[in-house]
Amino acid sequence: MAGNSFGHIFKLTSFGESHGPAIGGIIDGCPSGLVIDFEFIRREMEKRRPVSSQHSSSRLEADTVEFLSGIFEGKSTGAPIGFIINNTDVKSEDYLHLKETYRPSHADFTYEAKYGFRDYRGGGRASARETAVRVVGGAIAKLLIGQKGMQVSAYVSQIGNVKLTTPYGELDLENTIHSEVKCPDKKISAQMESLIKETKLEGDTLGGEIFCVVKNVPSGLGEPVFDKVEAELAKAIMSINAVKGFEIGSGFKSICMKGSEHNDLFEIKNGKVVTLSNFSGGVLGGISNGQDIYFKTAFKPVATIMKEQASVNKFGENVILQGKGRHDVCVVPRAVPIVEAMTAMVLADLYLRSLSSKIT
Amino acid sequence: MAGNSFGHIFKLTSFGESHGPAIGGIIDGCPSGLVIDFEFIRREMEKRRPVSSQHSSSRLEADTVEFLSGIFEGKSTGAPIGFIINNTDVKSEDYLHLKETYRPSHADFTYEAKYGFRDYRGGGRASARETAVRVVGGAIAKLLIGQKGMQVSAYVSQIGNVKLTTPYGELDLENTIHSEVKCPDKKISAQMESLIKETKLEGDTLGGEIFCVVKNVPSGLGEPVFDKVEAELAKAIMSINAVKGFEIGSGFKSICMKGSEHNDLFEIKNGKVVTLSNFSGGVLGGISNGQDIYFKTAFKPVATIMKEQASVNKFGENVILQGKGRHDVCVVPRAVPIVEAMTAMVLADLYLRSLSSKIT
Amino acid sequence: MAGNSFGHIFKLTSFGESHGPAIGGIIDGCPSGLVIDFEFIRREMEKRRPVSSQHSSSRLEADTVEFLSGIFEGKSTGAPIGFIINNTDVKSEDYLHLKETYRPSHADFTYEAKYGFRDYRGGGRASARETAVRVVGGAIAKLLIGQKGMQVSAYVSQIGNVKLTTPYGELDLENTIHSEVKCPDKKISAQMESLIKETKLEGDTLGGEIFCVVKNVPSGLGEPVFDKVEAELAKAIMSINAVKGFEIGSGFKSICMKGSEHNDLFEIKNGKVVTLSNFSGGVLGGISNGQDIYFKTAFKPVATIMKEQASVNKFGENVILQGKGRHDVCVVPRAVPIVEAMTAMVLADLYLRSLSSKIT
Amino acid sequence: MAGNSFGHIFKLTSFGESHGPAIGGIIDGCPSGLVIDFEFIRREMEKRRPVSSQHSSSRLEADTVEFLSGIFEGKSTGAPIGFIINNTDVKSEDYLHLKETYRPSHADFTYEAKYGFRDYRGGGRASARETAVRVVGGAIAKLLIGQKGMQVSAYVSQIGNVKLTTPYGELDLENTIHSEVKCPDKKISAQMESLIKETKLEGDTLGGEIFCVVKNVPSGLGEPVFDKVEAELAKAIMSINAVKGFEIGSGFKSICMKGSEHNDLFEIKNGKVVTLSNFSGGVLGGISNGQDIYFKTAFKPVATIMKEQASVNKFGENVILQGKGRHDVCVVPRAVPIVEAMTAMVLADLYLRSLSSKIT
Repeated sequence: MAGNSFGHIFKLTSFGESHGPAIGGIIDGCPSGLVIDFEFIRREMEKRRPVSSQHSSSRLEADTVEFLSGIFEGKSTGAPIGFIINNTDVKSEDYLHLKETYRPSHADFTYEAKYGFRDYRGGGRASARETAVRVVGGAIAKLLIGQKGMQVSAYVSQIGNVKLTTPYGELDLENTIHSEVKCPDKKISAQMESLIKETKLEGDTLGGEIFCVVKNVPSGLGEPVFDKVEAELAKAIMSINAVKGFEIGSGFKSICMKGSEHNDLFEIKNGKVVTLSNFSGGVLGGISNGQDIYFKTAFKPVATIMKEQASVNKFGENVILQGKGRHDVCVVPRAVPIVEAMTAMVLADLYLRSLSSKIT
Repeated sequence: MAGNSFGHIFKLTSFGESHGPAIGGIIDGCPSGLVIDFEFIRREMEKRRPVSSQHSSSRLEADTVEFLSGIFEGKSTGAPIGFIINNTDVKSEDYLHLKETYRPSHADFTYEAKYGFRDYRGGGRASARETAVRVVGGAIAKLLIGQKGMQVSAYVSQIGNVKLTTPYGELDLENTIHSEVKCPDKKISAQMESLIKETKLEGDTLGGEIFCVVKNVPSGLGEPVFDKVEAELAKAIMSINAVKGFEIGSGFKSICMKGSEHNDLFEIKNGKVVTLSNFSGGVLGGISNGQDIYFKTAFKPVATIMKEQASVNKFGENVILQGKGRHDVCVVPRAVPIVEAMTAMVLADLYLRSLSSKIT
Repeated sequence: MAGNSFGHIFKLTSFGESHGPAIGGIIDGCPSGLVIDFEFIRREMEKRRPVSSQHSSSRLEADTVEFLSGIFEGKSTGAPIGFIINNTDVKSEDYLHLKETYRPSHADFTYEAKYGFRDYRGGGRASARETAVRVVGGAIAKLLIGQKGMQVSAYVSQIGNVKLTTPYGELDLENTIHSEVKCPDKKISAQMESLIKETKLEGDTLGGEIFCVVKNVPSGLGEPVFDKVEAELAKAIMSINAVKGFEIGSGFKSICMKGSEHNDLFEIKNGKVVTLSNFSGGVLGGISNGQDIYFKTAFKPVATIMKEQASVNKFGENVILQGKGRHDVCVVPRAVPIVEAMTAMVLADLYLRSLSSKIT
Repeated sequence: MAGNSFGHIFKLTSFGESHGPAIGGIIDGCPSGLVIDFEFIRREMEKRRPVSSQHSSSRLEADTVEFLSGIFEGKSTGAPIGFIINNTDVKSEDYLHLKETYRPSHADFTYEAKYGFRDYRGGGRASARETAVRVVGGAIAKLLIGQKGMQVSAYVSQIGNVKLTTPYGELDLENTIHSEVKCPDKKISAQMESLIKETKLEGDTLGGEIFCVVKNVPSGLGEPVFDKVEAELAKAIMSINAVKGFEIGSGFKSICMKGSEHNDLFEIKNGKVVTLSNFSGGVLGGISNGQDIYFKTAFKPVATIMKEQASVNKFGENVILQGKGRHDVCVVPRAVPIVEAMTAMVLADLYLRSLSSKIT
């Protein structure tokens, strides 16, 4: 039983390899009557473009989404939304030397272990190329939850050891889009760009952290006991290539807090139940409580480096591997729209699931 | 669409409230012919018992599992395995004062927001009581994956600021079971117990961290691109009450590592492809690579404290809340078998899913 | 991947063998706030009792449903509804002689082929005993769809060659409950009872047909292109033991009709779009059109006969089998509540699914 | 929760409207290593072409399948198989007059009731055009189950009142492909063709029956208690446009049979357990017994007729409708590959599901 569908009611099924003719997907379960803002979708796709400080040799895809169904006269019809994105800038010959070699910390070996053989061109299905499909699903999901006022914002909060420590509430998140590295703080942005340039010269790569917040979430989303908000978000985020960690609210910091410090006290504000602090990250018992949902996620450094590495091939021989092809020093800025997309799909799905929670 | 089932092929569906007549579940998809070791299951359930240093006032359940179906002559038949655990030590009157009050950092408010009303007795469905059902599912899963040699071991690696820093490979994990706080290091164990006693006197509570490792995992488990090993594990673990974070392999530490440091180089050992390091935590591209799978998870401090707290009630009034009832200072030791259970179910499910990966 | 769950949002998971300690199930996805009428559920269970003209030697179960969760102060809470029904009248020794023999047209051989061994007592999981669990699920589903006015009524329209030809619209369906054989026509009922008595003397068994109609179905239920109303109903009904056929609306008769005869013309009646005829059986394009949904289903004769039959055993030997145990001549009257239950669950599920069809 | 996916492990998700740019789908869960015979798939698609005796005005699609992923060097890779079929012969203007009118026995009214508005061009999602996607899924499924020797053969057994009564065992099913009306008997074929021509002149339409048999099914497929072979087949077949009935084995005829007549006696033949008759249609207790699985299905007459019909429009007005556009007199011959496709997908799915039935 394969795993290329995401979501229960709002469901994205994805296909496509890095160097095939096209990638694409089907969104099933989008309610009818949603106005589809194609310009918005185009801008979301744009966000996946590489960082200019590193992109000289990087793949440049136009990433034009072609919608094939489920939309009529500018609105979703309730039928499945099928779409494709052509792979236009494919240089498969770059990968011929990897046909029989397992790159360290890549999926070459495991795909072959699982499936017996693999499409070795550009990482095949394991390429981050597939995340473009997620961004399309996320864009539609954002339009859907946007109708209920929900808003998803992610940004880069750390690259290597350059860390943004300002709390999200004190940042102007509108700045994220203007930053090459998708960090809303100009000064930290510049430091991150410098670090990327420097690391590029070393032929090495960097990891980072993305922070994400969802505002205006209604209380009552989340399906205990297994499909809690944080469980669904964790799955969504940990399914993104290179992610190694996820924490919601206080996260790992909660370990050293006492209950009396960590508890978010309730109060009534403008007739609504709110909390004075938000260590929980907007979820209690797996259900949203109406406060901001926020979380952090860790990305490991890019596995493809421009240095020699010892490795093995499929014949059980030792080989020396030299990094080739087009690769980013740091993918974290490009992962911002993907984190947002996965988050939006989780919330769209949980919102639609919540419609049958109560007798109406 | 509710969320009380876990898994795709090996699937546990759970029911039950803290103060109802019984909790229980159905395991569907366990293959036939598995020898059911009832004594092993009993011991797994035993692990959920409270820590003696804190348990004076805690609920003591015998937690005897009554199997009702799916087992014949000591083996699974392939039919669904139904089971119940009676709730024998129920003191609902302890909770009457909470009928209309929302406890801070509890699920009272969110359940009411979602469902319109709630079973307020003992936390109802949001009680950690439901995790006993998970342990039963996990015990059967352990027996199943045990047939393939896989072994799941979790232990407490931190309580409050008392942290075990020894790498898991240098610990004797057999010691975990003998530790009151489920920490395999005797000295750290003692420190943790002291901290618990001390915090109990303060009327406060503690969080902690659990470390988990799975050994002898065959390569090839995991279903990209959404149901990657780490994604399924993250969902499983983040669905446990009080969990705020999850990291696999290098986790959040990977952020500050370079690619050249983080890459796990392959080599051939005894004719098998292995890695020299294991920062990936046993997964590449979402698929197990045959190395140990290991992860950490953060538990927030228990929400019920024995101190006065300001809160609100369902009528929108401010109230002062005094902690009552039977509660633990730190639930992390009791969560060890739950972490193991969820992990075992993920691996059982991914193992069964992998059976249709290749033409045979 | 086993198959003991039914439904997508309103979902019943079932367990239990004929001669185990209990059967039971979990209903997940029932919205909160539904008033649970326990007396109604008791009456639904009652309908499964055997026909008196044949029941002298039949198993008599009290079939008391014990609800264990998901209901509080008389209403569903949104949590899973767990329940068990004890097996009280079990005579396993009746089946010892079948331990190694495959009864003709029973599931003995196929369960053994599939699972390697089987619980041979009373048919194990293949026994019609499991349908009691469906009736519980169906009773809750009826309460749910009853809130929207929907009403499910099934009756026996044929036993052997005794056939009720009066259209359902001309029958008083209130009479069904008072008929031993669950046929709303008194005269035909008497003929059916005679036929059963007669056939009992022969040691033989009978098949039959059940007709089912759902009234007051809102238009808009059904999920094309695969989960059409008729597809979901067909699956539901064909999953009942002994069912060999299903037809909706004009069914097999439609084969000989011309389009001009078969088309149901629309007209406006009291401001609503209705049809002049209803050959479609209330569905167009897989979606309910607001007219009655009606269908027929065929039950084969009971496989256990009181005559000698040639068969084989698990050692590949020929054996002569003599019918023993407690069995019905005709199970069709007892299947009426099961057909209703499955139908109600399909409609409850499709109703809840429809809540996310349109942007609201 | 929408319904555009079919299957559990071998899963087809479908998209596309009659008059959009393309239709297509994603097959997820096809095991890796399956040799993809593109010429075979082309021939399967060919079978959907219209009957020459009626096709003068019918739509002619080349129906070339473009595979976009999941296949590498001629074999399935285990990744999802995405594909599209362009809509090349679209005449949307033919449908402008139907924008606001509900055609009798079409899905116009119900789609609008469900979704609020509809893509009225050519029936939109409700068009039989979507079945081309099913044929692609079925072709891959046939290749998969073909590896285990299973073979699916369907043919037209009745059109209007012209009925083929010869049992399938006495027919040469190789002849089906050569018959314009997909009936393996030449004489009956000719009668069917005459009837179609005649009915075309009347401006009327015809229904029919399709018979389907699956040979060489291993025993042990099917997942009780809800996902029995016959339940899954019934859902699959009843999800095809215009299907009104399904019966397996003895079907509705079983109603009038006695148990002593209907029971299929076992015997040992060449060391294997076989049955002397096959009224069960190859399933016992919902699990295949190794005998042929066979069933029949009823198709209603085509709804679009070339005669005047009274109807209503969306404004609640009476209108007179004159049939226009390109339509078949009888779609049953074109439905043969669709019945085969759905059947093959059910068996592929149940086969893959069976791989985890037993401990291995």
